[in-house]
Amino acid sequence: MIRIALDAMGGDNAPRVEVEGAVQALRDLPPAFRIQLVGRTAEIEAALQGHGTVDRARLEIVEAPEVVGMGEKPLAAVKGKPRSSIAVGLGLQKGGQSDAFISAGNTGAVMAAATLMLRLHAGVQRAAISPLFPTAVHPVLVLDGGANVDCDARELVGFAHLGSVYVRDVLDRPRPGVGLINVGEEDEKGNAVVKEAHQLLKQTPGINYVGNVEGRDILAGQCKQGRIDVVVCDGFVGNVILKFYESAGRMFMGLMKQAFPDVLGRPEAKQLFRFLDYSEYGGAPLLGVKGVVIICHGSSPARAIMSAVRAAAHMVETHVDQDIGAELAGGGAGAAR
Amino acid sequence: MIRIALDAMGGDNAPRVEVEGAVQALRDLPPAFRIQLVGRTAEIEAALQGHGTVDRARLEIVEAPEVVGMGEKPLAAVKGKPRSSIAVGLGLQKGGQSDAFISAGNTGAVMAAATLMLRLHAGVQRAAISPLFPTAVHPVLVLDGGANVDCDARELVGFAHLGSVYVRDVLDRPRPGVGLINVGEEDEKGNAVVKEAHQLLKQTPGINYVGNVEGRDILAGQCKQGRIDVVVCDGFVGNVILKFYESAGRMFMGLMKQAFPDVLGRPEAKQLFRFLDYSEYGGAPLLGVKGVVIICHGSSPARAIMSAVRAAAHMVETHVDQDIGAELAGGGAGAAR
Repeated sequence: MIRIALDAMGGDNAPRVEVEGAVQALRDLPPAFRIQLVGRTAEIEAALQGHGTVDRARLEIVEAPEVVGMGEKPLAAVKGKPRSSIAVGLGLQKGGQSDAFISAGNTGAVMAAATLMLRLHAGVQRAAISPLFPTAVHPVLVLDGGANVDCDARELVGFAHLGSVYVRDVLDRPRPGVGLINVGEEDEKGNAVVKEAHQLLKQTPGINYVGNVEGRDILAGQCKQGRIDVVVCDGFVGNVILKFYESAGRMFMGLMKQAFPDVLGRPEAKQLFRFLDYSEYGGAPLLGVKGVVIICHGSSPARAIMSAVRAAAHMVETHVDQDIGAELAGGGAGAAR
Repeated sequence: MIRIALDAMGGDNAPRVEVEGAVQALRDLPPAFRIQLVGRTAEIEAALQGHGTVDRARLEIVEAPEVVGMGEKPLAAVKGKPRSSIAVGLGLQKGGQSDAFISAGNTGAVMAAATLMLRLHAGVQRAAISPLFPTAVHPVLVLDGGANVDCDARELVGFAHLGSVYVRDVLDRPRPGVGLINVGEEDEKGNAVVKEAHQLLKQTPGINYVGNVEGRDILAGQCKQGRIDVVVCDGFVGNVILKFYESAGRMFMGLMKQAFPDVLGRPEAKQLFRFLDYSEYGGAPLLGVKGVVIICHGSSPARAIMSAVRAAAHMVETHVDQDIGAELAGGGAGAAR
């Protein structure tokens, strides 16, 4: 049995969307997991009213009276609101009563609380938000997606480890290729941090480093030097590309609907739009903390919440958390499995 | 009369593509300009053979026996090859015999040579590659697109000036909105350089600063605070987004062709594909140098070269170079026009 705690008070439309996502997940996904809706019980119960019969044996409400707002300063919110849905939800995992935590709330607060409460695995310098980018070939994991706006070279190497374990476990690719985002493929390209990281990555055992990659290589899933499964960058660059990509997908959908309104009803259109829709991908794991944490968009629809529940369950099943612990504790000797 | 020097030896398929682009430009664009093809005369003449009658009164060949390779180190190439097509082409402009220079060759070498030979306008710290991003609303200028991988806050402010003058002159938008790329809109977001630039930009007269913008705001052409015409970032971030965007366009086109092969022949498809095709946009100006310089992709097709010729002519006509000189010399008091 897998127990997944869901921050019911997190997103822009909480708790309505979170409750709807939880109900959908219980209906559509395998019965092997339970959901713990964390937040104000009365509001959650009210939101549950509209959904007919729900299997309450698999859906628990865990009271958390405080709510962290989207605009609150992360650290102050975490320290000032110990009974927030974020703190209570992560507390369940810390206490062994839950296996994963999902939130569409204040990203900074979730990161801060997760790092403080669950702590980082030994050998991990920084936790990284790790979104999966859909491509026409295979999904590519990009990290850091925004947790750390400044990174040194060793931290970038750490992201390469985190991403490699995730892709090996969760996407079942035995030897993930890792690229370092740069402005060109040559050794001398980039700023000081990236140049140093490039040299370090070349010498790091356990990492299948393909080399510097450019912006165009991410969606190609490959470059001249090989296949790319993991792309490493600082959280500033990662965050900008991530948000840019989502908006490019939206723009492209809009242009297509305008140009070919008659094809919208076709099944191929549905498939294409699903590809371009981030809610299919259900948030991004925060890798490096001891535990399973998934961070969703504030504007996540119920479908994205459901996808995140599925993704969290899969992370628990594939032991990615334990494997990260083993890989990083070994100084990144890697490929222990 | 406008004289445009074109590096005939620059791109991956030089001089064939450059010659073809020049011939097309002479046929399709207004007669107000002449083209100076710079490179190895014999090779250029040979490439001209296939093109039937060409108005040679408007097409001059300027001999330059040396060629800078794509893989050469920029500074060494510039110093070691004073008779390269890049040096000779820029020399024409420096000597008053030409009004603009276009190259699809070694980007670093073009930047280095342009900075050394034409020099920067007073008040400009760094020249910036300034690509125009197509969007569903209005094109948005993003700078720096890759000339400077490390930038300090004052340099980012300089890019805001350069971009504002360009958009005012060339795109005829009287009061361009400037955004600073960041991971969130709040004052406290970003790394140290971006935070400082944000504070400086708020106090800079002559800049219509809308504030921090996120990756998703670029293609929207606006954010909560207002309309965005110019987006400022360091050359590392700009280069990654630029290349990422081009590849996203290609990927979307591929997916669409796969999903709806039957709509490809429609005029709307042609229009959509043209929108997604960077060769419509004809390279990116190198703003800040005293003169007009446009840098094209190494893989530019003839159509992109023709678009670059048109763009260069328009830059000359609208006096953007002189206006940058006036704006920056005045410490950026701006909006002198």
